[in-house]
Amino acid sequence: MDFRFEIIHKSKKSNARVGRIHTPHGIVDTPNFVPVGTNATAKAIDSITLDGLGVQLMFCNTYHLILQPTTKVIKEAGGLHAFSSRKGPIITDSGGFQVFSLMYGTVHDEIKSKGRKQENNSVLKINEEGVLFRSYRDGSPILLTPESSIQAQKDLGADIIIPLDELPPYHTSPHKLKRSFERTHRWEERSLQEHLKNPQKQAMYSVIHGGVDYNLRKESCSLLSNLPFDGHAIGGSLGKTREEMLAMLSSMIKYLPRDKPNHLLGIGDLPSLEPSIQLGIDTFDSSHPTRCARHAMLFTNEGTIKILNARYQNDFTSLDPLCDCFTCKNYSRAYLRHLFKSNELTAYHLASIHNVHYMMKLMVHYRTLILNDAL
Amino acid sequence: MDFRFEIIHKSKKSNARVGRIHTPHGIVDTPNFVPVGTNATAKAIDSITLDGLGVQLMFCNTYHLILQPTTKVIKEAGGLHAFSSRKGPIITDSGGFQVFSLMYGTVHDEIKSKGRKQENNSVLKINEEGVLFRSYRDGSPILLTPESSIQAQKDLGADIIIPLDELPPYHTSPHKLKRSFERTHRWEERSLQEHLKNPQKQAMYSVIHGGVDYNLRKESCSLLSNLPFDGHAIGGSLGKTREEMLAMLSSMIKYLPRDKPNHLLGIGDLPSLEPSIQLGIDTFDSSHPTRCARHAMLFTNEGTIKILNARYQNDFTSLDPLCDCFTCKNYSRAYLRHLFKSNELTAYHLASIHNVHYMMKLMVHYRTLILNDAL
Repeated sequence: MDFRFEIIHKSKKSNARVGRIHTPHGIVDTPNFVPVGTNATAKAIDSITLDGLGVQLMFCNTYHLILQPTTKVIKEAGGLHAFSSRKGPIITDSGGFQVFSLMYGTVHDEIKSKGRKQENNSVLKINEEGVLFRSYRDGSPILLTPESSIQAQKDLGADIIIPLDELPPYHTSPHKLKRSFERTHRWEERSLQEHLKNPQKQAMYSVIHGGVDYNLRKESCSLLSNLPFDGHAIGGSLGKTREEMLAMLSSMIKYLPRDKPNHLLGIGDLPSLEPSIQLGIDTFDSSHPTRCARHAMLFTNEGTIKILNARYQNDFTSLDPLCDCFTCKNYSRAYLRHLFKSNELTAYHLASIHNVHYMMKLMVHYRTLILNDAL
Repeated sequence: MDFRFEIIHKSKKSNARVGRIHTPHGIVDTPNFVPVGTNATAKAIDSITLDGLGVQLMFCNTYHLILQPTTKVIKEAGGLHAFSSRKGPIITDSGGFQVFSLMYGTVHDEIKSKGRKQENNSVLKINEEGVLFRSYRDGSPILLTPESSIQAQKDLGADIIIPLDELPPYHTSPHKLKRSFERTHRWEERSLQEHLKNPQKQAMYSVIHGGVDYNLRKESCSLLSNLPFDGHAIGGSLGKTREEMLAMLSSMIKYLPRDKPNHLLGIGDLPSLEPSIQLGIDTFDSSHPTRCARHAMLFTNEGTIKILNARYQNDFTSLDPLCDCFTCKNYSRAYLRHLFKSNELTAYHLASIHNVHYMMKLMVHYRTLILNDAL
């Protein structure tokens, strides 16, 4: 099936909507949460188990897959789906985010560093052509261009792909931001052209940029929605706080076409979801739920539980009595705490299953609210 | 159901036999392999998944469970089965093995060290009463006596329990070996007495000792088979090499009652299984298959595969085409190699499932051979 976005219902209370993204590997109901499977696996959850949790879209990182096992190997396997045994839809990024995170630190780190964090030597050169960086695995130089990123994503064969963009740091001068802004839009256009030579039934989302500059964000929306992208992802730094992010989203989203899906890149913490959905965001990717799981932070209908807390030592009740996941059906809080205390790998597996399942149920809940005009 | 051992068939070619150990939590077909679940979980495989692999008996370590989460907590949970959600039978050891391993190193390390490894300060005192050691978790002193070990194992509530024994090092003087030998038999008798005060439908196996001294091994068999143990485990150092171990087993097993099950403690490497089964060993416990799995050594019908080998980079065939486990049904060698190369937790989970499943199938194979008088 070709890519298509269908809006089922628009809430009467907000810009939230329930939709369906049709892809060659199946349907993604929206709003939805997209677990990150950096290396072609969600952390501590294999593909078949992830399917069983109802995960409709998985986010893989092209940067990591270029380096290991290489996109050549994955192409030989028949693409990411065949390689990883994932049956459902996959979205890949361009690799740019990781390259620039290595350079500036993640958005979060960079904001915290107040701009003091300088370029490290993993990025060797950025120019109009693209970005030259060193492999963190063996130090070999790798040139990532709009064209090479798209070729890599063609080899991977995800259902949705993303153009190469530059991720400017939060702490940057207006001049540098503007220069980066212009180059990133030229890169996105080159990426789109490369993609359209051989669409392979893949869809391509743009990445809206402009940092924390409202005018640049508006301009980015205008520029990119005039190009034949299949949807729009929102990238780059949106502000220091959740309030700044929501204000920016609120301001910019009206400049995006309502008939195409919107994806919020790298945001998936629980408090950000509901207000973003109300603004019209359709999908979110984040490693937050699986990272929390590995750090013994478990999402429940009573709030997030720090399972290592001594109060759970003798708590033989189910982790979340309202949850019907494999972990909650079979294991108690006391047992999960014990597994974490004992550093057992089983802990990470069971906790990750639960947190991802929780996110899937939460999204069903939001979709139901929207269908009832209650969000 | 109470504990009972039933012999189904004796091979006409060797001392191998097919039997059934009936326990309160179900049947253990013998010969069988017993995965080690030190902390009340097999490493990287949760209890329900372990059940699904056909694991009929799991081996848990009392020493670890005394320290974390404590046997008190597990008793409150309703015992090990309720705590860990394991439905099938469980066997626990006395804790002695780990205490003495801390003192002398494991049998393997100690043999390799040629006796140079000295006592470390975790064992504070050994006398007739028992052994005083420091918790590796918080340094607090813990006295393990035959009575306290059995009380701990009563709290845990495994189907089969083991008396406190002393594990003398391979490198020891005949005088020290003899002194340890005598004390260990007194400890085992005290353990049995403590157990029989309140059997709780648990069975108790003795642990045959005597190190590499054939006469002591014979004497141990004689002493312990005259006591009302439900089966006999073979412990301590049996020699430096597999040949020495098999020679010792061959010599001693004739002194053990044929109508009770024999368990070989801590041995489960593939080449040791078949000859030991031919001598009449019924069950084996070992962490070998799960440890190998975590080190990317995968058992297959073509032999053990080092999956990190570059030859598997482009090998998109099933890990073991003759295997029907979850891992082999769903994932290729190239993908498993990639997961290990990427240090993904999924690798340990999928590899452990496969290696344990392999052991279960291998045991079915041995039982079939014996039933056909072909082993």
